[in-house]
Amino acid sequence: MPTLVLIRHGQSEWNLANRFTGWWDVDLTEKGVEEAKEAGRALARAGMDFDICFTSFQTRAIKTLHLALEEMDRLWLPEVKDWRLNERHYGGLTGLNKAETREKHGDEQVHIWRRSFDTPPPELEPASKYDLSSDIRYEGIDVPKSESLKLTIERVLPYWEEAIVPELKSGKRVLISAHGNSLRALVKHLSKISDEEIPGLEIPTGQPIVYELDDDLNEVDRYYLKDRS
Amino acid sequence: MPTLVLIRHGQSEWNLANRFTGWWDVDLTEKGVEEAKEAGRALARAGMDFDICFTSFQTRAIKTLHLALEEMDRLWLPEVKDWRLNERHYGGLTGLNKAETREKHGDEQVHIWRRSFDTPPPELEPASKYDLSSDIRYEGIDVPKSESLKLTIERVLPYWEEAIVPELKSGKRVLISAHGNSLRALVKHLSKISDEEIPGLEIPTGQPIVYELDDDLNEVDRYYLKDRS
Repeated sequence: MPTLVLIRHGQSEWNLANRFTGWWDVDLTEKGVEEAKEAGRALARAGMDFDICFTSFQTRAIKTLHLALEEMDRLWLPEVKDWRLNERHYGGLTGLNKAETREKHGDEQVHIWRRSFDTPPPELEPASKYDLSSDIRYEGIDVPKSESLKLTIERVLPYWEEAIVPELKSGKRVLISAHGNSLRALVKHLSKISDEEIPGLEIPTGQPIVYELDDDLNEVDRYYLKDRS
Repeated sequence: MPTLVLIRHGQSEWNLANRFTGWWDVDLTEKGVEEAKEAGRALARAGMDFDICFTSFQTRAIKTLHLALEEMDRLWLPEVKDWRLNERHYGGLTGLNKAETREKHGDEQVHIWRRSFDTPPPELEPASKYDLSSDIRYEGIDVPKSESLKLTIERVLPYWEEAIVPELKSGKRVLISAHGNSLRALVKHLSKISDEEIPGLEIPTGQPIVYELDDDLNEVDRYYLKDRS
């Protein structure tokens, strides 16, 4: 049976400050570091093991992976990093905290941006300090100016099919450390969740989500590791 | 001009305790962590950058790489881990401190094992707690029972040719985080150092070694980054 575990990175500085983060590269908080380590310890206690790991181009997900792997004594596992596992790009909301955003745009509009499936936030202004289009890390990549959850899914799923599915089908046990919305993309696909429901699905930080899959990678079961150990 | 930088991992717990370590997987000390971070900051200050990183299967080298990359804001770079970049396997000396070894085997013999090019130490005893032949990390790999520097070179250089040379020849800038003897293997090859001289070449922990190479990967210059910045 293919093994797949998803982890959303531990608490980041901007999770704590309640700011829209998206592609901005903030670090983990001390609590986030602890969450990542505890995720690793929980996986080790549960006797779970992996053959290959995937993560995004963002420090908070990469460090979460490294901290968890170190606790599992598995730092030596191969890891593949790809921008297509990055967080949803929040466009012009990047850097704003939720209260400022509500003040600027109104409660209803903010609710739409956060909970709509296919409405992207306003685009990042070209002169914004949060513009990453000339960041060396994204050289050769068309950095989005803003993404809805739908647009996020449209870049996550091709990567899933192209890079991750073949590993699972060849019998490899896969660990993915990523972000709230790139993981929503995977959970929507694997658990066949509707467009209406998926924006409301909360994925907590640092909690390993275990998928039991059949050989065609259909969900047999999905659970938080903490609920079974 | 191809860019190649080598780093020996920061101080490990057994560097500090003066024990033969080899393939045993000990962690960095606090000083080792600082050395790794400082190596990253020095590379960043010198304006050096990389496209791909290589490291061993051993925690101290992998963590040194991660700590340096984090300081450079380059955690997202691709990294390749391979057992052939591991430290020399010290066989039956593993775990002994240098004083114990001298007491057990005599000064002269210890000097031979440390400074001979092709005399491997005694083999690890099969029941030794340091036997890694059934460690999951080395599944499918014929774990050596003991290695001379010559034997170490005989597994490092094929990996160099097969995995690292093609990256350099395609114009990629390469960072390698590894160990005293796996790096001696590379330095011997690149700088054409004799069998007699190479065992005496000391490679300090956490000091980036910069190679300037011509297009055929012959050495143009080699220096410690700290001596030029």
